[in-house]
Amino acid sequence: MSTGRFISLEGGEGVGKSTQVTALAEALRHRGKDVLVTREPGGSPGAEAIRSLLLSGAGDRWSMRAEALLFAAARADHVEKTIRPALAAGRWVLSDRFLDSSLAYQGGAGGLGISQVRALHRFGSEDFLPDRTLVLLLAEGVERARLRDRGESDRIGGRSNAYHLAVEGAFRQVAREEPGRVRLVDAAGATTSVTGRLLTALGDLL
Amino acid sequence: MSTGRFISLEGGEGVGKSTQVTALAEALRHRGKDVLVTREPGGSPGAEAIRSLLLSGAGDRWSMRAEALLFAAARADHVEKTIRPALAAGRWVLSDRFLDSSLAYQGGAGGLGISQVRALHRFGSEDFLPDRTLVLLLAEGVERARLRDRGESDRIGGRSNAYHLAVEGAFRQVAREEPGRVRLVDAAGATTSVTGRLLTALGDLL
Repeated sequence: MSTGRFISLEGGEGVGKSTQVTALAEALRHRGKDVLVTREPGGSPGAEAIRSLLLSGAGDRWSMRAEALLFAAARADHVEKTIRPALAAGRWVLSDRFLDSSLAYQGGAGGLGISQVRALHRFGSEDFLPDRTLVLLLAEGVERARLRDRGESDRIGGRSNAYHLAVEGAFRQVAREEPGRVRLVDAAGATTSVTGRLLTALGDLL
Repeated sequence: MSTGRFISLEGGEGVGKSTQVTALAEALRHRGKDVLVTREPGGSPGAEAIRSLLLSGAGDRWSMRAEALLFAAARADHVEKTIRPALAAGRWVLSDRFLDSSLAYQGGAGGLGISQVRALHRFGSEDFLPDRTLVLLLAEGVERARLRDRGESDRIGGRSNAYHLAVEGAFRQVAREEPGRVRLVDAAGATTSVTGRLLTALGDLL
């Protein structure tokens, strides 16, 4: 049985992440991998129930600290019930967001501190990490325009421009701190070009 | 305006805690206090939504770690939205369970460690503590018989006898470590006798 790998795809709002999750899963299946696509918050029945608490309601429904604890709880459930069993069965797991979103959104942009949010993950999921994390990045202007065109947002996506700039800065910081695991990938250009870059950044794992 | 006080009432299953919450609130009102009665998990709209995730479903719905994170998230919301505002308005707050239940159930009996669960409270609620915590204790046999008579239990109350014995042991440990805040109170005897003991244990605050 081949060894499963755990890949997370990250990025701010409007970078084309959902499109790339689908495209990358397809490309990996073409290479013979048995791929499970999942997402955060969510990815298991318990975590999906927490997701609905996190993403609905008024913008100030949860304090940043309560929000970080809910994300950590959902992630613990996701890891235990979905990700670990799939990897144990030799599958590849591709998650639309994982820990690094919490590090960037609540830890960096939210002001709680990246190390504090990482400590919650250590408690909840024994610091379980992806084999590779791919962070899609776009120039700020392009990203904002895509989002405006889409005209939709949830409780967290709807936060200010400054917040989303800080999110991107935090992703860059995590990539500097963990260059082996975390790779920045340019999200500009045609879908197939971006997917090609993602595959290149996975080259040593394929 | 008089100063508000925050009192939590704790104890294992079947010690008569709910009855005493009502009786103690009444006794404090007789003494002229403006009392807000609240409970955990819950006590604010967000925390009540988390409560329904915590107390329903199968016994293994959540891992002990996810459960501890959910309690900490609910508590952060309860403190911020309900308890702090009431205290700021000069009210007395009487909570049916608070942090010490998490220390005893998940930290002690659940094996996560009391200090680990305390760290989650430090993160979520800046280690906000009651002015006094009253722990109702009964001899084990009496307690179990009360529960059987009541014939009801939720996802956590339904755990084994050994678990509930460990809960009581953890309550005793916390009381030894924080004798100023935490007081053990004998829950045996008539309701009015027990309420009298609770009031005695609050004597210096009244």
